[in-house]
Amino acid sequence: MTWKRKDLLAIQPLEAAEITHVIDTAGSMREIGARDIKKVPTLRGKTVVNLFYEPSTRTRTSFEIAGKWLSADVINFTASSSSVGKGESMLDTARNIEAMRPDVVVVRHQSSGAADLLARTLRCGIVNAGDGAHEHPTQALQDLLTIREKKGHLEGLHVAIVGDIAHSRVARSNIHGMRKLGMTVTVAGPPTLIPHGVQELGVKVSHRLDDAIRDVDVIMMLRLQQERMTAQLIPSLREYSRYWGLTLDRLASGARPDVLIMHPGPVNRGVELSPEVADGPYSVILDQVQNGVAVRMAVLFLLAGSKAAQGAAAA
Amino acid sequence: MTWKRKDLLAIQPLEAAEITHVIDTAGSMREIGARDIKKVPTLRGKTVVNLFYEPSTRTRTSFEIAGKWLSADVINFTASSSSVGKGESMLDTARNIEAMRPDVVVVRHQSSGAADLLARTLRCGIVNAGDGAHEHPTQALQDLLTIREKKGHLEGLHVAIVGDIAHSRVARSNIHGMRKLGMTVTVAGPPTLIPHGVQELGVKVSHRLDDAIRDVDVIMMLRLQQERMTAQLIPSLREYSRYWGLTLDRLASGARPDVLIMHPGPVNRGVELSPEVADGPYSVILDQVQNGVAVRMAVLFLLAGSKAAQGAAAA
Amino acid sequence: MTWKRKDLLAIQPLEAAEITHVIDTAGSMREIGARDIKKVPTLRGKTVVNLFYEPSTRTRTSFEIAGKWLSADVINFTASSSSVGKGESMLDTARNIEAMRPDVVVVRHQSSGAADLLARTLRCGIVNAGDGAHEHPTQALQDLLTIREKKGHLEGLHVAIVGDIAHSRVARSNIHGMRKLGMTVTVAGPPTLIPHGVQELGVKVSHRLDDAIRDVDVIMMLRLQQERMTAQLIPSLREYSRYWGLTLDRLASGARPDVLIMHPGPVNRGVELSPEVADGPYSVILDQVQNGVAVRMAVLFLLAGSKAAQGAAAA
Repeated sequence: MTWKRKDLLAIQPLEAAEITHVIDTAGSMREIGARDIKKVPTLRGKTVVNLFYEPSTRTRTSFEIAGKWLSADVINFTASSSSVGKGESMLDTARNIEAMRPDVVVVRHQSSGAADLLARTLRCGIVNAGDGAHEHPTQALQDLLTIREKKGHLEGLHVAIVGDIAHSRVARSNIHGMRKLGMTVTVAGPPTLIPHGVQELGVKVSHRLDDAIRDVDVIMMLRLQQERMTAQLIPSLREYSRYWGLTLDRLASGARPDVLIMHPGPVNRGVELSPEVADGPYSVILDQVQNGVAVRMAVLFLLAGSKAAQGAAAA
Repeated sequence: MTWKRKDLLAIQPLEAAEITHVIDTAGSMREIGARDIKKVPTLRGKTVVNLFYEPSTRTRTSFEIAGKWLSADVINFTASSSSVGKGESMLDTARNIEAMRPDVVVVRHQSSGAADLLARTLRCGIVNAGDGAHEHPTQALQDLLTIREKKGHLEGLHVAIVGDIAHSRVARSNIHGMRKLGMTVTVAGPPTLIPHGVQELGVKVSHRLDDAIRDVDVIMMLRLQQERMTAQLIPSLREYSRYWGLTLDRLASGARPDVLIMHPGPVNRGVELSPEVADGPYSVILDQVQNGVAVRMAVLFLLAGSKAAQGAAAA
Repeated sequence: MTWKRKDLLAIQPLEAAEITHVIDTAGSMREIGARDIKKVPTLRGKTVVNLFYEPSTRTRTSFEIAGKWLSADVINFTASSSSVGKGESMLDTARNIEAMRPDVVVVRHQSSGAADLLARTLRCGIVNAGDGAHEHPTQALQDLLTIREKKGHLEGLHVAIVGDIAHSRVARSNIHGMRKLGMTVTVAGPPTLIPHGVQELGVKVSHRLDDAIRDVDVIMMLRLQQERMTAQLIPSLREYSRYWGLTLDRLASGARPDVLIMHPGPVNRGVELSPEVADGPYSVILDQVQNGVAVRMAVLFLLAGSKAAQGAAAA
């Protein structure tokens, strides 16, 4: 297939074939990172702007490395050092950036819908690198690539996503992607952190960790934001960890011996994951990070470098 | 002509032919930004350092993109993360940077004369990216390029510059450039924001917006710094906006149908410009930004890449 | 000789031949910075990550320029804008960075031993760019290169290192390097700033500046951190400066006419060095900075680009 979209804003609107196409492309990009010379001329003369309104060095660095390995010019534009301090609106900032003729703008913003708004306004390609509690599509794509790499396939697998489902753009993007690819998803967490009506996304709900992780192929633990506690959505970290923290004991009592443990990072060690689990043999957390660069190379390539993208830009 | 200066510090000391030469060079650079492959090898092996003591992501990004499209190595050195925090003087910092052998240092500083001081001290080329209320020459050059592009010529045109003339390095650089190129300039604003003796720069002064914008070819609105209000130079934003904000009604009642509306950005929407005017058909604000990259490519090329620059460096 | 180490963590464990090898390599790198085209393809396709937990724009910039002149991709990852704000440990951050497959990680950290910890954990090359009061090996290497360049040799020279010996990683790295290369070292400073048992490093101790600088070949003045005063280790800046500040008068009364004055920067003018000395004919402070880029090119090349490094990576 050929990629036809100007932007990558969310997993929800994608067809299964599109998701598979990005993952396939990332699979072939991954090989570049294993070379002695990690550089291809694919995006030479293309400009990628990282427009980050929330600090996220990992994601920003992942996009920066992806762009540079493809020979793109990568410009970092972070809110803390920007004219955001002068009260300029995101849209004005983005219009100004667009006037400098980037090929792709990667945006991270605390408000859901920020990437959509940019995509409707600007002609260049927009990649959503996380917008509020909405979506974080490249994270889901790297997770899917990681699962497929480890399990050999995706269809028919059962994934438990555990933790703060309500506020997680990672969970939301993964749920959409997994459902479209024929996977079964169970979400689990304290009732205050499970969004009302989440079943409409096609997932099962569990309120006990031991039930949720039994016999699944993948356990995806989410990061607990400390803010949830001050908002009184959970009683304490200790309490949360006792009921929702994944330990070796818990894994031993109910999980499959070939289960994969995933986490979008950064891990709160001792809260959602015990250190033994985070660093243990089930964990594929660092594979997720490594595949993140490959997925971002694929996305930048599809938006800025492929024949289709050039055709779209010319049209 | 050949460019003979080591630095670009201000418009005031330039001859008309020099200004025209930079604008002409920028005009030919602009074409590179429209290419599918936005990259030429002109400054390969040259090093450009952005030394910014004031946050200004737009200007810094514009120089960074300009340098990268010309294949220069661009290094960002911002005060917030620098040894400025250790009490080091700008001159010590600059001498240290020079010892690393950059070809051009681009400096933004809150003090008038900062760029001059560097230029007298360092052997490498210095570009003033804004020094206090003194000058911001690349902004004026991009404005002149924009006007010439839209009007076909510069000589004989009449420009109204409106707002906080007293504190604006953008106004100062533009006034010098426009006067040298045979343009008529009227400055307009509340008396507290018009510097005493500004007529000596060869400009007319108006204290009514409706008078100032009548029959001019270009209206350049300046950004109102919020600090002016706390300094009691203006009574309130609402009051300022009522008397000095440009609206469609005001344009309709007295401005020419082919007037250009300019602004150096970022715009305070609803203060100096109504949103309808900022985004309307008269506005060339985004053209200014786009031409900004071309002007900075031209300046970096003239200081670091031209035969003359190489001769100067060898001498 | 061939370089066999994966990392450069400290001077203390190096053999004299290894130190000389890095300095020799830097000597040949220095020529690149003097070219019209400051760019060689040596590290093309290699990725260098600057992981800085302390602000240090000079050192970071020096590594960034070194990497770029060698055609490496250089990524800056600073703590202030990173997920450090989310409470992530350095080791987790580093593991994540490693998963993105850099060839070299340059780390600056406020804790002694931070670079060692990374080197034991990660497979990629680690360069210590300063860890607490432990070591700052590239600073010592650039100092040794500078002395050798000016004096023609190192063995047999006598160096006085003056100031806050106790808290200085620069002093510690230099002492190790100078002793290994057959140089004599006298450390001098107020008793509160001389570490107990420093003689075990093979240095002489002096508590009077005039004695310390008499007849030495090199005077290396250290930066006085303002924090030492609040910690009551020195009575006042004025008092410190009177007894330990280097002035022209002091130099005239006891120093050799060909003495070299060095300082790792940034200089507290009027505290440890009078401006006349800092900018005077004896000062080689800016040579140190210039040689810093050459040393960092050498180190990046030895860790990431030499045949030995490629063999080590393949093993």
